Amino acid sequence: MDDAARSLISQTPKREPQSFSAYAPSNIALSKYWGKRDKARNLPLNSSLSISLGEWGSHTTVAPSEDGLDHVTLNGESLAADTAFARKALAFADLFRNNCPLRIDTRNTIPTAAGLASSASGFAALTRALCGSFDMELSEPEMSLIARIGSGSASRSLWHGFVRWNMGTAEDGGDSFAELLPYRWDDFRIAIVKVDTAPKSHSSRDGMNHTTKTSPLFAAWPAQAERDCRIVEDAISERDFKILGETVEANALAMHATMQAARPALSYLTAQSWQVLEQLWQARSNGLEAYATMDAGANVKLIFLQDSTDDITSVFPDATVIDPFAGQ
Amino acid sequence: MDDAARSLISQTPKREPQSFSAYAPSNIALSKYWGKRDKARNLPLNSSLSISLGEWGSHTTVAPSEDGLDHVTLNGESLAADTAFARKALAFADLFRNNCPLRIDTRNTIPTAAGLASSASGFAALTRALCGSFDMELSEPEMSLIARIGSGSASRSLWHGFVRWNMGTAEDGGDSFAELLPYRWDDFRIAIVKVDTAPKSHSSRDGMNHTTKTSPLFAAWPAQAERDCRIVEDAISERDFKILGETVEANALAMHATMQAARPALSYLTAQSWQVLEQLWQARSNGLEAYATMDAGANVKLIFLQDSTDDITSVFPDATVIDPFAGQ
Repeated sequence: MDDAARSLISQTPKREPQSFSAYAPSNIALSKYWGKRDKARNLPLNSSLSISLGEWGSHTTVAPSEDGLDHVTLNGESLAADTAFARKALAFADLFRNNCPLRIDTRNTIPTAAGLASSASGFAALTRALCGSFDMELSEPEMSLIARIGSGSASRSLWHGFVRWNMGTAEDGGDSFAELLPYRWDDFRIAIVKVDTAPKSHSSRDGMNHTTKTSPLFAAWPAQAERDCRIVEDAISERDFKILGETVEANALAMHATMQAARPALSYLTAQSWQVLEQLWQARSNGLEAYATMDAGANVKLIFLQDSTDDITSVFPDATVIDPFAGQ
Repeated sequence: MDDAARSLISQTPKREPQSFSAYAPSNIALSKYWGKRDKARNLPLNSSLSISLGEWGSHTTVAPSEDGLDHVTLNGESLAADTAFARKALAFADLFRNNCPLRIDTRNTIPTAAGLASSASGFAALTRALCGSFDMELSEPEMSLIARIGSGSASRSLWHGFVRWNMGTAEDGGDSFAELLPYRWDDFRIAIVKVDTAPKSHSSRDGMNHTTKTSPLFAAWPAQAERDCRIVEDAISERDFKILGETVEANALAMHATMQAARPALSYLTAQSWQVLEQLWQARSNGLEAYATMDAGANVKLIFLQDSTDDITSVFPDATVIDPFAGQ
């Protein structure tokens, strides 16, 4: 069957590649994506909603290669063509090019593979850079559709701010793309509490597949996640931080619960992650209004409003605070 | 509607109470009970299977009171009639007596309310002591039916060894009782890794109700738990320790996953519990054949075979090893 994203790429007129640079911010899902209805197309079982990470993201330049060979660099380092990163980037570029050799230079401003979704910003920036390099006239939702083929969460990384990835229902994936939501929340803050930035042991792709295949509790997840996505959006539109935070944290814990029930259990969270959660819950019982969310890695991300910043950094001195709307 | 256990008690002939002492071991569910189909009768949504804890349990003596007043002691200490323990014990005795004042003396050989099911051995020993004191001719499955009214897991604490509590289907609870399974496994060992023996913050009764009411993942639990109960029994009967251990651990993690997804989340496990699990998983990847299970408390219980005992005490120097078949 046709694939909407691949058809869109092949049908859009292209010029000879030129050097083009793009940036995409990483994003953190406030209401998670975990589980696919179509693995080849990264079509999700539920919609998800994210906040971008401002200056934490990927800068990518795509340019014609002058020596007739593909070149891939990551953070200034040249990668062999058979490394995982180079293979994925070149396979993605293959969707656009007609055998022309390319240079793809990526610089991540966040640690790679630490559960902080560098694949999201990476594929989003690569999509923007490829579309720009080939001078393709595509809208941002169209680029989101294409970025999704690289990594599901990349569909949400085209923009700064709150973004909703609509699950869609079309079999070819033609209605499964993200859109920027019209909510600006200047006081919204994110803190990353680093627990373990070593490369993770299971990719989120493998973890997702293992969970959907073996977790007896997974069946109940997609419907709840879809509900949460709406509650989160409503809470953002109504500036109801308490409902937002409670739903965000419950949604993340439910997602990790589906993994914990997988056989064998899958645990991206470590004892140290739970330690951070206990500190948070203790601080919250003392009045701090902050909530946690966790992805396919051990780090804990906190959301809170600007006036809690001092309290956050006092409880978590090593936390990095991000203002997602700064400079936007 | 009639209640099978209450009818059984009222219809069984009794004599004047005499002093009678009984012992019941605590038990640890290898395949868990979590969620009720009838709260008043403690009727479970699935069958469960346990192993007794040998000398860890409750010694209870029921005797006529000579001063016309009820007296309840716990571990040698006299309790006021309005303490939770005294209220529960006397309410249970009310099912048997016709206003006659009683002395109820209980001595637990395990820490109370530390997630180690002292209510299980407590109500089982109290049932045996009351039946003995009133000289009632009841079979052990009948006593199990009665103990269940006190605490669900007490239905499994009448015996040493492996015990299965059949969920039953009768509305009056008449077929929801436990039975001793005909499997003796002399090499079977349990270790308790104490994490936190402070009284727990939520009773398992409250935790169960909160989970069934608010956890979106709970709906999938009962069917899986029923399957696990059969797999665990088959593995015991076939002496397949690997299948047994993997199922026991997966079943416990799935139960805790249903709580983690409750809203708000319920977490009996602490960061320290996860630390113990990480140590276990690390040791297992190095060849140690031991598996974990956790109940409504922070402690971690390990199951393993006798020849792993030295390795267990080397990895977990503070663990207490229990031989459930010793002296039986």
